[in-house]
Amino acid sequence: MAAETCGVGAVRAQSAHFDAPLRLRCGATLPGFDLVYETYGTLNAARSNAILVCHALSGSHHVAGHYADDPANVGWWDNIVGRGRPLDTDRFFVVGVNNPGGCHGSTGPREINPATGRHWGADFPVVTVEDWVQAQARLADHLGIGQWAVVLGGSLGGMQALQWAIDLPERVRHSLVIAAAPRLTAENIAFDDVARQAILTDPDFHGGHFYEHGVRPVRGLRLARMLGHITYLSDDQMAEKFGRRLRNGSFGYGYEVEFEVESYLRYQGDKFAGFFDANTYLLMTKALDYFDPALASGGDLAAALRKAQAKFLVVSFSTDWRFSPARSREIVDALVHNGQDVAYARIESSHGHDSFLMRDAHYHAVMSAYLGNVTT
Amino acid sequence: MAAETCGVGAVRAQSAHFDAPLRLRCGATLPGFDLVYETYGTLNAARSNAILVCHALSGSHHVAGHYADDPANVGWWDNIVGRGRPLDTDRFFVVGVNNPGGCHGSTGPREINPATGRHWGADFPVVTVEDWVQAQARLADHLGIGQWAVVLGGSLGGMQALQWAIDLPERVRHSLVIAAAPRLTAENIAFDDVARQAILTDPDFHGGHFYEHGVRPVRGLRLARMLGHITYLSDDQMAEKFGRRLRNGSFGYGYEVEFEVESYLRYQGDKFAGFFDANTYLLMTKALDYFDPALASGGDLAAALRKAQAKFLVVSFSTDWRFSPARSREIVDALVHNGQDVAYARIESSHGHDSFLMRDAHYHAVMSAYLGNVTT
Repeated sequence: MAAETCGVGAVRAQSAHFDAPLRLRCGATLPGFDLVYETYGTLNAARSNAILVCHALSGSHHVAGHYADDPANVGWWDNIVGRGRPLDTDRFFVVGVNNPGGCHGSTGPREINPATGRHWGADFPVVTVEDWVQAQARLADHLGIGQWAVVLGGSLGGMQALQWAIDLPERVRHSLVIAAAPRLTAENIAFDDVARQAILTDPDFHGGHFYEHGVRPVRGLRLARMLGHITYLSDDQMAEKFGRRLRNGSFGYGYEVEFEVESYLRYQGDKFAGFFDANTYLLMTKALDYFDPALASGGDLAAALRKAQAKFLVVSFSTDWRFSPARSREIVDALVHNGQDVAYARIESSHGHDSFLMRDAHYHAVMSAYLGNVTT
Repeated sequence: MAAETCGVGAVRAQSAHFDAPLRLRCGATLPGFDLVYETYGTLNAARSNAILVCHALSGSHHVAGHYADDPANVGWWDNIVGRGRPLDTDRFFVVGVNNPGGCHGSTGPREINPATGRHWGADFPVVTVEDWVQAQARLADHLGIGQWAVVLGGSLGGMQALQWAIDLPERVRHSLVIAAAPRLTAENIAFDDVARQAILTDPDFHGGHFYEHGVRPVRGLRLARMLGHITYLSDDQMAEKFGRRLRNGSFGYGYEVEFEVESYLRYQGDKFAGFFDANTYLLMTKALDYFDPALASGGDLAAALRKAQAKFLVVSFSTDWRFSPARSREIVDALVHNGQDVAYARIESSHGHDSFLMRDAHYHAVMSAYLGNVTT
């Protein structure tokens, strides 16, 4: 390994309120809203060293570090942020933000709707990746950041990085699109719909207003997460990690946990269902399904990307079957077709879609090399 | 196409009762049990032309033809059985049987347990592929069939064909193992467990004794089937069949059906949940998970297969990702290693795992060619 690196240590979340209403793609308007965010490193005098990290389905503003009063609560992408790490806080000012519709403090279904005095719940409007870019732009204004050096993210986060380059081209110098796709396939949507149906048909969902009933649709949320985890891992990795190993060494001929993989999935499902908001889960999967920047160009992704001014790094992972390397190549091919500036790395990794969150020497070396050449 | 073929027409189900208890792998004993079955064609004088068709997860004894009083109820593999079809009823006597634990009339959770006078429900013991082979052997005895010319099946049915050749080697001349695998992977088990958890956590499941409550766990069963369908189809086929097509032409920004693929899955889920038994679904998935004929040989499949006397045809489909061609090759490789008689066909098909049920010219030509050489 290279020289020792250092994480960002104790951090704290901040909040910003935005008075101006946000007109959403769905036709609804979000009145004044709050965004919770964190920052790591220092904004330079030229305000030219800012990086926006966009979160995926279950992520949040808490990208790196830990909280002084909750040291076990480490950010979801801690391994990539800090001194000597790819998102080097000696050089960059890194911003993480929880998107509207989320459940980590930004305005979303779990928060109180000022118009009704009760939880937004199912009344929270459907939000899209485009909406998030607009909301994040408000935060950039608030922080005095006219142009991001870099916008990046993995999975649904990578889609936001792509949308930024299209919607606000003059405000992004580099767009890093990791483990993403330019649109979901029918199979992707199918998995999302099964997860949504699990939540929507849970008797404790109460049409999205479960907060008032003192219950949470934990059964549906648990199933959604179990299913999600299958698509995040690779077949090979599951074979290696669990294989057909039995919890107790022999068949139990019943429905308790038998195979180790069952134990893992149920544990992940239970953990997630214990804290995540069911309405947020629905919203996040809808944002995934709707994402399709080429739609307005009749499906022509190259045409959609033509107005982007950013330079691109596209990264995919060999065993990612949720958004396979072929899907990343669609983005690369469109950019190449346009003669735009794009680098592409396909990383060999056994960790499937989750690879983008892992500390892998080759992956991080690619990220460090690219980001090392980003001028600030 | 070749000459015209002809289906078997109107058929009727028969039933056989077996008095002798069946000792199961799980340690429990099934007292006298019933098997529902159908036959097509005529058993020859030498009783040497019998073919056993084993069903998969949701199949039944109703393999081919229709019922005089229910003409729309066509057997699940009708396209392969009849005059001039691969399972040629001019030559063969074809038998379909519903396995114990099923929900189509054979002794199973939906039937009444004579010991208690109420539905078996969750009291029905866990059954395995080995148990089914033993039960099917009883039916063979009943029909006076000492040796099957052919035992065949797709998916879980193929596993039974394989187990027959191992457990009762002198009673099978040809084993046709289609779209199967010698054991499930961790990923396969993971999908099964999510489906099971959907059923087990449905409040209407009532610990498997929902019959007495006048309800059925339709929510869980529906989710299980939706999920199953994703694994039965191929990504390519879903892209071709549904793509991102919208039911109403534009985004609805809500949770009603929007994408055509959602419509398809929910329809399939609803239809299945309307008739299938939830306990049977659990039992079938457990039989899949437990299937591992090499386990007793320390994982050495070749050793497990060595005592088989049958000739084998192994068939896989290019886009099947539930049991991919590589999984079929594991069986072929073990047989080749042993110097056993095996033919292998990998069929190009866009229909994923479901390909084994489809009428595909190449696939059916392979089946016809192989079965045409089976002496009777």
